Amino acid sequence: MEIEIEGGSVTRILMGVSESTIKGHPHASISSRGAFDWTIQKIVRHNTSAFKLLFLHVQVPDEDGFDDMDSIYASPEDFKSLMNRDRAKGLHLLEYFVTRCHEIGVSCEAWIKRGDAKEVICHEVKRVQPDLLVVGSRGLGPFQRVFVGTVSEFCVKHAECPVITIKRSADEAPQDPVDD
Amino acid sequence: MEIEIEGGSVTRILMGVSESTIKGHPHASISSRGAFDWTIQKIVRHNTSAFKLLFLHVQVPDEDGFDDMDSIYASPEDFKSLMNRDRAKGLHLLEYFVTRCHEIGVSCEAWIKRGDAKEVICHEVKRVQPDLLVVGSRGLGPFQRVFVGTVSEFCVKHAECPVITIKRSADEAPQDPVDD
Repeated sequence: MEIEIEGGSVTRILMGVSESTIKGHPHASISSRGAFDWTIQKIVRHNTSAFKLLFLHVQVPDEDGFDDMDSIYASPEDFKSLMNRDRAKGLHLLEYFVTRCHEIGVSCEAWIKRGDAKEVICHEVKRVQPDLLVVGSRGLGPFQRVFVGTVSEFCVKHAECPVITIKRSADEAPQDPVDD
Repeated sequence: MEIEIEGGSVTRILMGVSESTIKGHPHASISSRGAFDWTIQKIVRHNTSAFKLLFLHVQVPDEDGFDDMDSIYASPEDFKSLMNRDRAKGLHLLEYFVTRCHEIGVSCEAWIKRGDAKEVICHEVKRVQPDLLVVGSRGLGPFQRVFVGTVSEFCVKHAECPVITIKRSADEAPQDPVDD
């Protein structure tokens, strides 16, 4: 029996990716890298032409401003340069994943949105209609979750497509498990 | 860059499958068939040699006995024949999926366990350590969920591997959405 694959189209996997929260670690978060590696190793494998990865990075306006508590904003240009710096950080993050896809030979797209991560991700699922959403998770206990919230739990409940949550393995967790 | 796939081993996907609850429909449930079709079309695709599907059917002892309220059990043999009949139904279910895998050319294993579906599935995940657990879901609203419980929600929280829940599409739902 033939495997029926609609119109021979590729499987489009949307991945929500985030920056590391660890100081001096201006790269992809541990859980984002884990989710990416798992997706390549377990799902895409060597069948690279059958998949397309879509990377979405959501920048949270409030949190981004937090680093700049000691900065002085005297003109609209100061805000603009802040926005540009955030944008550069986000682009750097996406560049990491796009470069890895390019090396592996799997096609991809990447973009940045601003807003509340969990809501933006679910909104983008509705808009781009991927076959699958992959989100990394810190794998926190219930007590830690209360304070940081979890994007993954919200997406599992509300995203309009199947969702895989990839938990960070215990040996990858940093000293403070809320970091990522 | 090479895609590192540990030891060239296959991706092992465990699927929890159940019988249809619809009368006169002694086959796989709508959500189980939906989860299987989705997994083949979106994940396995034509890369059949890279995956192995593991089918687990959990028979619930109490529910199985429910059909037999009007039966009279006069000897241990009566129970034995009931057990055998249940076993035959379970084997028929697994035969459906094993036959489809055989036609598609993807390797598989299938087995039956008795007990509470959600607990048995999580226990089997611990025992066989699949790369991924796929469970179908009726996609019920919160009100309907209270009465039927959901295996998928429990597995997403407790299974020690990544989990995908495949919701039944609205146009596949039977007249009573609690049926499957």
